[in-house]
Amino acid sequence: MTDRERWQELGQQLRADSVRAAAAAGSGHPTSSMSAADLMAVLLDKYFRYDFDQPENPTNDHLVFSKGHASPLVYSLFKAAGAITDEELLTFRRFGSRLEGHPTPALPWVDVATGSLGQGLPIAVGIALAGKELDRLPYHVWAVCGDSEMAEGSMWEAFEHAAHSKLDNLTAIIDVNRLGQRGETMHGWDLDSYIRRAEACDWHAIAIDGHDVDAIDAAYAEALGVGDRPTVIVARTLKGKGVSAVEDKNGLHGKALDDPEAAIAELGGERKLRIRVAVREPAEPHAFPGGTLELPQYELGDDVATRKAYGEALAALGSADGSVVALDGEVSNSTYSEIFAAAHPERFFEMFIAEQQMVAAAVGLQVRGWKPFASTFAAFFTRAYDFIRMAAVSRATMALSGSHAGVSIGEDGPSQMALEDLAMMRAVGGSTVLYPCDANQTAKLVAAMGGLEGISYLRTTRSATPVVYGPDEDFPVGGSRVLRESDDDEVTIVGAGITVVEALAAADALAGDGISARVVDCYSVKPIDAEGLRDAASATGAVVTAEDHWPEGGLGEAVLSALAELDEHPAVIHLAVAGMPASGKPAELLAAAGIDRRHIADAARRLVRARALP
Amino acid sequence: MTDRERWQELGQQLRADSVRAAAAAGSGHPTSSMSAADLMAVLLDKYFRYDFDQPENPTNDHLVFSKGHASPLVYSLFKAAGAITDEELLTFRRFGSRLEGHPTPALPWVDVATGSLGQGLPIAVGIALAGKELDRLPYHVWAVCGDSEMAEGSMWEAFEHAAHSKLDNLTAIIDVNRLGQRGETMHGWDLDSYIRRAEACDWHAIAIDGHDVDAIDAAYAEALGVGDRPTVIVARTLKGKGVSAVEDKNGLHGKALDDPEAAIAELGGERKLRIRVAVREPAEPHAFPGGTLELPQYELGDDVATRKAYGEALAALGSADGSVVALDGEVSNSTYSEIFAAAHPERFFEMFIAEQQMVAAAVGLQVRGWKPFASTFAAFFTRAYDFIRMAAVSRATMALSGSHAGVSIGEDGPSQMALEDLAMMRAVGGSTVLYPCDANQTAKLVAAMGGLEGISYLRTTRSATPVVYGPDEDFPVGGSRVLRESDDDEVTIVGAGITVVEALAAADALAGDGISARVVDCYSVKPIDAEGLRDAASATGAVVTAEDHWPEGGLGEAVLSALAELDEHPAVIHLAVAGMPASGKPAELLAAAGIDRRHIADAARRLVRARALP
Repeated sequence: MTDRERWQELGQQLRADSVRAAAAAGSGHPTSSMSAADLMAVLLDKYFRYDFDQPENPTNDHLVFSKGHASPLVYSLFKAAGAITDEELLTFRRFGSRLEGHPTPALPWVDVATGSLGQGLPIAVGIALAGKELDRLPYHVWAVCGDSEMAEGSMWEAFEHAAHSKLDNLTAIIDVNRLGQRGETMHGWDLDSYIRRAEACDWHAIAIDGHDVDAIDAAYAEALGVGDRPTVIVARTLKGKGVSAVEDKNGLHGKALDDPEAAIAELGGERKLRIRVAVREPAEPHAFPGGTLELPQYELGDDVATRKAYGEALAALGSADGSVVALDGEVSNSTYSEIFAAAHPERFFEMFIAEQQMVAAAVGLQVRGWKPFASTFAAFFTRAYDFIRMAAVSRATMALSGSHAGVSIGEDGPSQMALEDLAMMRAVGGSTVLYPCDANQTAKLVAAMGGLEGISYLRTTRSATPVVYGPDEDFPVGGSRVLRESDDDEVTIVGAGITVVEALAAADALAGDGISARVVDCYSVKPIDAEGLRDAASATGAVVTAEDHWPEGGLGEAVLSALAELDEHPAVIHLAVAGMPASGKPAELLAAAGIDRRHIADAARRLVRARALP
Repeated sequence: MTDRERWQELGQQLRADSVRAAAAAGSGHPTSSMSAADLMAVLLDKYFRYDFDQPENPTNDHLVFSKGHASPLVYSLFKAAGAITDEELLTFRRFGSRLEGHPTPALPWVDVATGSLGQGLPIAVGIALAGKELDRLPYHVWAVCGDSEMAEGSMWEAFEHAAHSKLDNLTAIIDVNRLGQRGETMHGWDLDSYIRRAEACDWHAIAIDGHDVDAIDAAYAEALGVGDRPTVIVARTLKGKGVSAVEDKNGLHGKALDDPEAAIAELGGERKLRIRVAVREPAEPHAFPGGTLELPQYELGDDVATRKAYGEALAALGSADGSVVALDGEVSNSTYSEIFAAAHPERFFEMFIAEQQMVAAAVGLQVRGWKPFASTFAAFFTRAYDFIRMAAVSRATMALSGSHAGVSIGEDGPSQMALEDLAMMRAVGGSTVLYPCDANQTAKLVAAMGGLEGISYLRTTRSATPVVYGPDEDFPVGGSRVLRESDDDEVTIVGAGITVVEALAAADALAGDGISARVVDCYSVKPIDAEGLRDAASATGAVVTAEDHWPEGGLGEAVLSALAELDEHPAVIHLAVAGMPASGKPAELLAAAGIDRRHIADAARRLVRARALP
């Protein structure tokens, strides 16, 4: 069999297997798989370098299906490579199968989950950055993109960054099958529209017929020969290629074929080609030196912004652990990641104002075992929420740090105030959410984040706040700290971050009224110290929570969840930002939001008095 | 004074006033204002058409400062136009002032809040769409963009959509002052990099010196003469132009000048130019006919997907109210907004897979009084969270509908499952969050959304569920419905959407054990029926909540918040999706998530038994 014949046969096998998998499931996206089958056949047989027996091999290429709905094709490729059996292929989309509706790292050969369009290419940029800048290994990153997803701005963030970083180890393949879910895409088969945009972004761009295996072969060879820039192959294809009942027909997206038997017959029947995928020479990735951890230490009573402590602690962590890397969205002089950048310039990535690409790059870097810390204003992580959500599906490990939380930022106004970040980050599968109130606590939590699995989030404060803990104290994730306590406590005040400062002042005011208040610093918002909170609530019989955040989904509701199953549940007053804030001084805004020391003390008095009534 | 002299003088005045405003505030972004002052001077004096006495005038142009941090310039323009006094200008950033750190519609001449970069241009696209397709009026939309924000993919979504819709009533002005917050942008002063990208996106593009008022004049004239496509003016400018202490200097972003007096002197001192801004001929916007509302009706016991009812009800609402318009992110055959599109094709906007642009366009359309309903999979609204957050700051009124909520979607897997949308949408200022369980309820809630202010969100279910309410029942926003009730109820089960179905089945199972359970349909998740829930909780003494969502920030925590201040708080078991789901049949996944009828009944039994213990 010639190469050409084998590629054509393999293409038909991948189509037939895609049809079969979807037929077994009764759902899925076979037609979106069939359009890219020839592109993948040539890639798998001739260009892809991958040891399917050792998916962790550092020199393995990376294949990211940005068009994740073409999962039948992904799994058919794995079958052709001998990684899964035909029997497993037919478990597609069944409960308990590793072959989910869209690919996830439940399979060891899948780096990241895709299925939310516009994410695979930005993540591939991150993997390619790791290859060039960190691992310094010759692996190549292949990203298979749909034409519909080119409408996502995140794809163009990826185009910008890949060119800016001269990622000649990245090839994007756009499967231009013309048809989206409900009709034609914006550009249909106008390949030139993609070519022009890509070239304007300084990519090398090649237009081909995506069913001509010789043209595909030539395009891959050309792409691998381009130095100094990434390449995009824009391939004209037919959705449902090879089966007349579905080929280039609208209205069949995401559906198993009505007559799979006829389709397989038209494709020439089942085949049993097995491809021995070439493996790249083994090599070790570059490593940066580590050392002992020497966290910054802050003097009790000094005023230090927790965002500043973040930057200093991260730089220290980077000195101790050579796998720590940092990214920032063009605000490193606000988040203080610039301190890390100055200390470890080779491990710092300026992502400009492209938060989606920043988080995607972090996901890509952690694919290769690097420990990314990505920072921007907390409010601007909302821009990347879909990427964070999907990172959890990817079982990614990364740390995010959001500065400028809440109304306490002051004059800049609500566009810059994160008031939903706790809700957003708590509602991420398996996440950790931390919110320190002082600099020493911040330093310890940053160090802890270096060892956490999954997605962790640190919320920091813009303004300088007093150091209330000594540098030798420990703050385990999932814990809380009692800052004021006596046997006579009649109420518990729970705060975190900036409201700890207010809670302490409120406790002072209450003491003046003869009311003894316990103050709990709930620095670990998720997981929360449910036992500690239950004990405090039961002991004092009334709880006030205060947070610089909307009332929904933040600290207060986390506390309520912790107390929910208690039989003897005390009344809880939940203070949070009550209305849309404007500009003003931090103290003015905390007061206007109803979360300052005065409001906390008033709420505590109300609870204590209510209980004193007959 | 010649035009040229007046423009130069006005530019200096705008600079001096920007310096003065920031000096009065002690913060702000004067240097980012100074770079664009000449561009704005010519615009205000010669090209902008706006009746400052009647900001609601339908023929007024629209000026959107996508670079919202240049708010000193915005307010200096308003002063030059006579809209605000010099005294008010100097209240910049003070508590209680309308002149916030970033512009908001607290000022009647500001259409939308900006300050989160990359949003103004996409919103301007929405306003321009309204002008061309709906209002059919000759107003022009001017969007002033920063060069740093061109890194946001959302800007390129806007470029794509503006060209696709041939928005020749839109002009973008990019103020290429080279310097971002912490250093040079990706492209510095490489104007051609922007020109090439814009032209590749089929825009007309003009490069100029942004301080040459003749060149600016010529560029605006050229832009207004271009038919069939939008124009971008790429202007090379100097950040801090005109003041040697700050001009083109890095490290001065977002800071008031150290020596404002010297700066004002260097600028030639204060000026008192007052520009009489030209007004466009009055005209009435186009209106689409309305009629009486005839909502679809569904038979009790039939199985109908709430997403289908959404589409049918929206089409009916569109027939009743000519101001209702719809947008969709290339999934209208899944969200069923295609039913609206078929009924009202002139009022339907296909936004392709660009959720940020979709929400931004909705915000732009509502600026002109249209009532947008935007739909996609609920999971994919996470892509637009920053836009939704900012829409609340804009006091925008728009309706969002997210389909395919939760694990109950089945085989497609977690990338397509919204498990955080309730948390995300609850944590939006002033939002309304609705989650119907059947088709008749959906229809009534869609109609209600047509009359709500602010941002409302409807969560719909993929699979068909039984119609449990007759078509004549009412469902006020903020209410709940008791579906099962007796005097002997020992436990309350609270569900919403898909878990109402499960709760009813659980109640049946419990009845078999001799346990009487009250079932509450909490279709209004925000505002929640706190009184109804408190009554049910107090009457039955135990509560189980169940939701197809992560445990954080959703229905369960909303219920806990409603009960928080109760003195006699019953124990609450809060069932939610316990771990990362995979693919499977809906029933399998509801069971695996721990939120199906069996888990609900088990939780209820546990609570009832615990209470029976001595």
